[in-house]
Amino acid sequence: MPGTVRTFGKMLVKEEEIIEFARRYDPQVFHIDPVAARKTPFGGLVASGWHTAAMAMRLIVEHRFSQVAGAGSPGVDEVRWLKPVRPGDELSVRMTVLEARRSESKPDRGIVGSLVEVLNQDGAVVMSFKGVSILLCRDSRRPSAAPGIKE
Amino acid sequence: MPGTVRTFGKMLVKEEEIIEFARRYDPQVFHIDPVAARKTPFGGLVASGWHTAAMAMRLIVEHRFSQVAGAGSPGVDEVRWLKPVRPGDELSVRMTVLEARRSESKPDRGIVGSLVEVLNQDGAVVMSFKGVSILLCRDSRRPSAAPGIKE
Repeated sequence: MPGTVRTFGKMLVKEEEIIEFARRYDPQVFHIDPVAARKTPFGGLVASGWHTAAMAMRLIVEHRFSQVAGAGSPGVDEVRWLKPVRPGDELSVRMTVLEARRSESKPDRGIVGSLVEVLNQDGAVVMSFKGVSILLCRDSRRPSAAPGIKE
Repeated sequence: MPGTVRTFGKMLVKEEEIIEFARRYDPQVFHIDPVAARKTPFGGLVASGWHTAAMAMRLIVEHRFSQVAGAGSPGVDEVRWLKPVRPGDELSVRMTVLEARRSESKPDRGIVGSLVEVLNQDGAVVMSFKGVSILLCRDSRRPSAAPGIKE
């Protein structure tokens, strides 16, 4: 239901995982070299923004999607990296439902729009985005059935 | 300069890398199980959208950012996953500069806004987003100096 807010998950951000992700996908010095990173505007190693997004996705899939309900996403909007994510941080996700409806073209699917906020251990929002998920409905013959997200 | 278009990079999408990324960050069935994925709306294994973004970022950092110029990004907008990315696809990036200017608050930095399109081997756009990069200027004392992107 629109307005529903859920906060869930806990993921420890490890230095070696920051470096491993960034070596492969975002090899900028402040993501891969803890010493050299001290001389950058970040003042130390920080996670790639795409890594933070990926960690948030893991928490969302684990805690919110049922095993077979997801059917992909057309996209996300207003992705904002608001604060650095550093080794030792512990991330969780706060999701606020903005919209939930049946697909008009494919009535076996639900469309859920959400504001996703990634929080650190101090409750600060380190990243946010607005996402849309397509979900297979539990029972497409019952028009009132909720989309296949965990309750 | 606004309007400048560059296409660069080549990255082969491997099945084992799709699965490895997704097991860790996006463990939905159509990203981790090639057999079960056939029965999903995707008809087979597809890369996580966040994985596609990460692969594009790798090409951008490798081909466009000089070693020390990047200073992060406040965010991206209008992220769209337009077509499935499958094992064996070969991705490249087309970047169109939308805006390039000095930061008013921090004149040693440049702000470059770009449309990023991720292309497959057929030239189809599989993903797109609008991004903003903060770049350290090569010479902050020369107001006309370009931001530190590779020419």
